[in-house]
Amino acid sequence: MATVTTWQTIATESQESLLNSIPTKWRLPGPVDASITDVRSIPRTCGLLTEKQLELTEQTASELLPKLHDGTLSSAEVTEAFCARAAIAHQCVNCLTAFFSEEAMARARELDGILAKTGKPVGPLHGLPVGIKDIFHMKGKRLTMGYVAWHDNECTTDASVVQILRNAGAVFFVRTTMPQTGMFLETWSNLWGRTKNPFNTNFSAGGSSGGDGALVAMRGAPFCPSTDIGGSIRAPGTFNGLYAMRPTSERTAKRGMGTAAPGQISIKVSCGPNCHSMSDLKLVTEILLTHHGLPFETTAVPMPWRKQIRAQQGDKLCFGLMTTDDCVTPHPPIARALQETAAKLRSAGHEVIEFKPPFDCWEIAHATWQLWFQTGAKETIDLVESSGEPIYSTFQWYLDFFKIKPLTVPELFKLNTKLAECRYSFTRAWHETSERTGTSRPIDALIAPCAPSASFPHGHTVWWGYFSLWNLLDYPSVVMPMKKMRVDPIKDAKGDINYTPKDNVFDKMNWEMYDPELWKNQPLTIQIVKPQFMDEELISVSETIDELCNA
Amino acid sequence: MATVTTWQTIATESQESLLNSIPTKWRLPGPVDASITDVRSIPRTCGLLTEKQLELTEQTASELLPKLHDGTLSSAEVTEAFCARAAIAHQCVNCLTAFFSEEAMARARELDGILAKTGKPVGPLHGLPVGIKDIFHMKGKRLTMGYVAWHDNECTTDASVVQILRNAGAVFFVRTTMPQTGMFLETWSNLWGRTKNPFNTNFSAGGSSGGDGALVAMRGAPFCPSTDIGGSIRAPGTFNGLYAMRPTSERTAKRGMGTAAPGQISIKVSCGPNCHSMSDLKLVTEILLTHHGLPFETTAVPMPWRKQIRAQQGDKLCFGLMTTDDCVTPHPPIARALQETAAKLRSAGHEVIEFKPPFDCWEIAHATWQLWFQTGAKETIDLVESSGEPIYSTFQWYLDFFKIKPLTVPELFKLNTKLAECRYSFTRAWHETSERTGTSRPIDALIAPCAPSASFPHGHTVWWGYFSLWNLLDYPSVVMPMKKMRVDPIKDAKGDINYTPKDNVFDKMNWEMYDPELWKNQPLTIQIVKPQFMDEELISVSETIDELCNA
Repeated sequence: MATVTTWQTIATESQESLLNSIPTKWRLPGPVDASITDVRSIPRTCGLLTEKQLELTEQTASELLPKLHDGTLSSAEVTEAFCARAAIAHQCVNCLTAFFSEEAMARARELDGILAKTGKPVGPLHGLPVGIKDIFHMKGKRLTMGYVAWHDNECTTDASVVQILRNAGAVFFVRTTMPQTGMFLETWSNLWGRTKNPFNTNFSAGGSSGGDGALVAMRGAPFCPSTDIGGSIRAPGTFNGLYAMRPTSERTAKRGMGTAAPGQISIKVSCGPNCHSMSDLKLVTEILLTHHGLPFETTAVPMPWRKQIRAQQGDKLCFGLMTTDDCVTPHPPIARALQETAAKLRSAGHEVIEFKPPFDCWEIAHATWQLWFQTGAKETIDLVESSGEPIYSTFQWYLDFFKIKPLTVPELFKLNTKLAECRYSFTRAWHETSERTGTSRPIDALIAPCAPSASFPHGHTVWWGYFSLWNLLDYPSVVMPMKKMRVDPIKDAKGDINYTPKDNVFDKMNWEMYDPELWKNQPLTIQIVKPQFMDEELISVSETIDELCNA
Repeated sequence: MATVTTWQTIATESQESLLNSIPTKWRLPGPVDASITDVRSIPRTCGLLTEKQLELTEQTASELLPKLHDGTLSSAEVTEAFCARAAIAHQCVNCLTAFFSEEAMARARELDGILAKTGKPVGPLHGLPVGIKDIFHMKGKRLTMGYVAWHDNECTTDASVVQILRNAGAVFFVRTTMPQTGMFLETWSNLWGRTKNPFNTNFSAGGSSGGDGALVAMRGAPFCPSTDIGGSIRAPGTFNGLYAMRPTSERTAKRGMGTAAPGQISIKVSCGPNCHSMSDLKLVTEILLTHHGLPFETTAVPMPWRKQIRAQQGDKLCFGLMTTDDCVTPHPPIARALQETAAKLRSAGHEVIEFKPPFDCWEIAHATWQLWFQTGAKETIDLVESSGEPIYSTFQWYLDFFKIKPLTVPELFKLNTKLAECRYSFTRAWHETSERTGTSRPIDALIAPCAPSASFPHGHTVWWGYFSLWNLLDYPSVVMPMKKMRVDPIKDAKGDINYTPKDNVFDKMNWEMYDPELWKNQPLTIQIVKPQFMDEELISVSETIDELCNA
């Protein structure tokens, strides 16, 4: 008797097949009790990991690598520990699309053999397990990008980023989820279901690299290389309390990233880490931006990595503070995170001055959406519909709201010209701050909200502007957790800040959804920004902020 | 009695007004006798310049600048000499659109005063006169770009390149011609007439920077910063026997260059020098690519200038030699210039291997044209027609030949994707030459024809592919004269090379027009190329070739 293949059966089979690829020794007895919303302790409480495995997986890449390089730790034991923990993580937050521990263990043992034989690590990431988002082509693995139509789309080549990390010694062991269409700050697809936030499984893990953010937050991988064209590295970083960076897109190797509509070159995708420390962020970003081990790369500027001299102890810095984009008012805890950071910087002798974008961010957000979807999102919608699966309902809402339609080339030229003017006027405004700082330099960095909320309950329609502004400008930006802060219903009560409603639906929706009790204990982050190509300086100044706020 | 303003009266008045802006002391008694086709000696024979002025204007920028920096020469005397010689040049080859010697002399005297007072030059080009193409916005000057419609289009700001050179100490004194539409390898407009080749006024000065090429060849300026989106720096360099460079466009400051259709970002314009030596080429390119004195620039990658270590004496290099693109067979003297260069390199112990592009250059040329004119050239044609002037007849021929029509955005995306694939496949082919070289490195540079002919009689329809290939790939390329060679009717007879006609009209037209007697004494050049962003290395390897071939 023949069974009819529907998108539903494909999805069910895909999810079951993935779960079955996890060895029984790492399988939980059943689904996690829905009343447990903070699942971060389950890897420890489930009893399936050894104490050593828990200890290994709670180290950062920078802590593990010296031991992997000198043989104190074997790649096999580290890889096995992360395989075990990633398996548990997936069963808690649904963050994977592929699990291949046997292949990973074989590679780990091979790398251990090379180190034993030669005494030398193959590269800076020798033997370290790394998760790879379902957007990168990876030979022999499936690239689904959350589309049912691509559920069995097997790759024949490696993306440049995969080659770079492989050359650097990484061990691949899992692929991570992303949302249908890729254009969401949450991670949901008909094919793989919903990825959840480890701090509160009723909340979004962020998107599009939600699998990366949830996996890393669960300590199921030391880091993942995420991708970002509108916030997709940073929303998962923000909502999962991680360190994350969207480097200057022009510097990142883009060959072999999947897309339904190749050829859009106005706003380019970037690639950077979601991880647990500034050391890891710096280590991974340098590897990605120097295209480690690639003989050539035609999608990225081969800028030499500048070993930036840190601001000297005692040097006074001046920070710009952008508290709002005047479109959507951030929730009270976001405002508090910014103000407390500013206070810490001032206490340490630094200067903080107000900075406002020199243009209307509402208009800029519309231009950004139109530049993302220059063909009216036709290829994306066609691809979704080709399998019979329904499109995510809010996707159409966004398209309608931003009046997305196929552009003519003259319309596109006008938008490209507007984009160039935005980059010019913002950069000019940045440089003109030198007239207001006490350093006679322009501001050393800009501190801004990451998002108007610290994650949100699943399925909300939210404002991307605090992320996407930096995509439009191609300004590198770092997401940094304020480790000593969490959303606090007392400190972050809804009535306590002077909120004036803006005349737009995003502001209204954002404010209405906020409930301090619901948000309780969500992590808080800030965003740190510098002009295009100043990635090294951004990392340096972020290190200064991290030491002041998180030490 | 009111006169009717027509495009003809505007053109006549513009040309007369320009001529009248030249002081009578520098006016020739009348038009140059048409029987004198090589006009290069007229500045010397006309009797209007002093011996000192002739001697000053025959020096390169690199020779003049140390004396301008230490006060041995005043900017006033150098500027006056070039004003005088540029005036004569214009009357010989019609290379200018504006002449402002009084303003230039005032600035020169100001710079002399600063040097006398401070003992310091204001920048590396302190006091040096520089010609500026009619494509750069320049405050208070007209930007016509060869359009009658823009004959009185006064600029309110300076282009970035103008700011850079001004900051470096340049003295502006003339604006130089370019063709109507800007998209030609010759220089003709209804507004300004035709710019002629100083070696043979019946031949093309090249385009679109034909004014630059003719002016510099006449020694009317030590160098000009030219612009190039399809050969426009290099055709004038080639046809006038100059050194010229099209840097990586991503590294050049593009703000404030005129265009009828802003917003095209698939193939970007570049800016580099037309000049008289490798030293000048290096000096000017470094200033342009480091954006000297600009506080910020949002149209160019701020790559640090790498002070490249020269290939050591005795180091064996390996050059790729591309003799043809398999579309249009170069004329015999072009083939000879390449072979004689290869022989000299081999004699010096270097290796020369054959290199063929890894794709069909005919198809690539079509894609290039379609990417240049994504809107079907509508804005350009509308702008021409708005004044009633006729469009240059071959422009429409090119549009028809390359099937130019307005693209849809999906068609544009396909072409952008093809472009990215071309860059990848060419760069891969380049790197794979390491399997064939004796150095175990990829080829150190590629040597190629500049054009299939050493200029051509006015009004021919010619093949741009040998220039535009490097625009599509954004590979930096140098044009270098072979100073010991000229077209020679004996050595370069038409029947002497084994010519097999290609099945296309460009090859047929190119071959049919060649007449060794007509081309006699035209200068010969080669093109030297390296991959995108390797501008410093390209200059270094070009210096090696220059020393071997031109010392």
